[in-house]
Amino acid sequence: MNYTANALLAMGAAPIMAHDRNEVAEIVTTAAALVLNIGTFSEAWLDSMLTAGQKASQCGIPIILDPVGAGASALRTAAALRILKRTDVSVIRGNASEILSLSEDPGRSRGVDTAHAVEDAAEAALKIAADLNATLAVTGSVDLVTDGKRVVRIHNGHPMMTYVTGLGCTASATIAAFAAVDGVPFSAAVGALAYVGICGEIAAQSASSPGSFAVQFLDALFGMTPETLKHRCRIET
Amino acid sequence: MNYTANALLAMGAAPIMAHDRNEVAEIVTTAAALVLNIGTFSEAWLDSMLTAGQKASQCGIPIILDPVGAGASALRTAAALRILKRTDVSVIRGNASEILSLSEDPGRSRGVDTAHAVEDAAEAALKIAADLNATLAVTGSVDLVTDGKRVVRIHNGHPMMTYVTGLGCTASATIAAFAAVDGVPFSAAVGALAYVGICGEIAAQSASSPGSFAVQFLDALFGMTPETLKHRCRIET
Amino acid sequence: MNYTANALLAMGAAPIMAHDRNEVAEIVTTAAALVLNIGTFSEAWLDSMLTAGQKASQCGIPIILDPVGAGASALRTAAALRILKRTDVSVIRGNASEILSLSEDPGRSRGVDTAHAVEDAAEAALKIAADLNATLAVTGSVDLVTDGKRVVRIHNGHPMMTYVTGLGCTASATIAAFAAVDGVPFSAAVGALAYVGICGEIAAQSASSPGSFAVQFLDALFGMTPETLKHRCRIET
Repeated sequence: MNYTANALLAMGAAPIMAHDRNEVAEIVTTAAALVLNIGTFSEAWLDSMLTAGQKASQCGIPIILDPVGAGASALRTAAALRILKRTDVSVIRGNASEILSLSEDPGRSRGVDTAHAVEDAAEAALKIAADLNATLAVTGSVDLVTDGKRVVRIHNGHPMMTYVTGLGCTASATIAAFAAVDGVPFSAAVGALAYVGICGEIAAQSASSPGSFAVQFLDALFGMTPETLKHRCRIET
Repeated sequence: MNYTANALLAMGAAPIMAHDRNEVAEIVTTAAALVLNIGTFSEAWLDSMLTAGQKASQCGIPIILDPVGAGASALRTAAALRILKRTDVSVIRGNASEILSLSEDPGRSRGVDTAHAVEDAAEAALKIAADLNATLAVTGSVDLVTDGKRVVRIHNGHPMMTYVTGLGCTASATIAAFAAVDGVPFSAAVGALAYVGICGEIAAQSASSPGSFAVQFLDALFGMTPETLKHRCRIET
Repeated sequence: MNYTANALLAMGAAPIMAHDRNEVAEIVTTAAALVLNIGTFSEAWLDSMLTAGQKASQCGIPIILDPVGAGASALRTAAALRILKRTDVSVIRGNASEILSLSEDPGRSRGVDTAHAVEDAAEAALKIAADLNATLAVTGSVDLVTDGKRVVRIHNGHPMMTYVTGLGCTASATIAAFAAVDGVPFSAAVGALAYVGICGEIAAQSASSPGSFAVQFLDALFGMTPETLKHRCRIET
């Protein structure tokens, strides 16, 4: 949560991290986007997420779901599916295993096999996107974004990103920040993931170890210009 | 919480972060100051804060209240006011919007308008300080400290401080560290805010982006000398 | 929790931080080691720790207990003792005061006196290790590891490590990472503490202040080679 908040501040967004059931609905009404992240899962926080998500759905505020650990426990898979059922999610961002765990094919959805490659989840992502009328973002060495019709791949990023906890959460939060100013969830997801990936590349230029890399990554988020983003993005349509 | 703990360690203080209702009273008896920070608000933590605060009040341990997000939700405003009613707070530190939300004028106290400048809250701060016999510290580009009679402004600080989450919390915790060794809450608040502001200036000399800045700020807290503090402080009485 | 997760990633481990009572048993079955850390103590989390610990005991997964703050509150001391009674702990890692609080001698076990030196807890550590058939690791300026018969002292480390919160927790987590691949808790603890201590020394070579040091420490964990570990370890048998 702390790193994600710092990342959002570095990119010029204005994060509020709230989780009490009795205040989230009120706080959501002041937000331009809502991230529901089940990484710090508990029953109480899930209740708050449903409350916040229902309010955001009523208000037309874009919701980004990060199903952290879906597939790693039955409870997390069920929590993510419950959020999808009860709220109007605009974008789901997860790794291949998390996205696969949300598909209805029980033969593929169980277990904690995190070795799934992004392409293994491409079909599931397309189907979920079409079924839910949402944008699916599957991140890995190559990122895949689909709205059920279009499929785009983003080739930015750096292996060092897997050594810093919270960078997946940061990617989801960045999609929310982009969705707050871009009415189209699909293009928000594509732009956000290119931005995050390029910042990973820039950070890796001056940091070859994860402690320094995490610091440089925040600096890169802060220092990004439209020119660098345009020049360095490697988006395959 | 993590960054604040690191900041306290860097300045030579000895933080304990506890929140369980059944242990906070015991832990408070070993502390030289208590910070009640509603940033991570929940009903359960508020209960613990009231318990801890009541014990500290009995023991004469200085209490510093950080009403994070007061005004951003009705629950937070109510929580801050409840703490003020039930415990003997020595110092309240917040931004202008948070301090305004604690004043009794309903026309000014609602909403999440964080655009309020410190001077907008000067009158409210003076009144609250006098009413509660407490010290009020309103922080922003210029910080204002008042005990209801005296008003002091601190001109130290750097805009980069707004890009790191937890620096407001750190300012409150620093006031607590100063209050632990300075019997006068007013001078503790003035000294702590000058110290924090100067560290922001020093950090900005070697870091122009928020990731590096957050690291350098901790280093500056650690490296501060009485001479630098005296030489660089810009306190307007 | 965040720093510990980053430390584990930097050393090549795969951390999952879970705390909900209803999922910890399932997640434990996929883990190669379990850390129970009472630093973020609450009654609900203690329940989860007991559930996770009982499952790990059944599955033969090594459990590392970090009794953070045992002795600082009666509740924490009781919590640590309850975990020891109900689960099959392989390694306990704490500072001298924490370890002393777990011994049965009430004259020595109470209070929050953190001034205890490692050697003050040597006798208690030996006795607890023998009684519980566990490995005890007492960390401080010199670390002591005993299984009740053998006693080893590790002379690696650096004073700057006391200025970063979570480095004790990181030491415990590192023991867990070593125990996950080393069937012998005793040698896992000795190796892990040497590794952590050497990384502290390496970090201090390029960072003389705690903010930079915390970053460099993660980099050192990542960069360690078997040769450096072998060459720099100062283990006294």
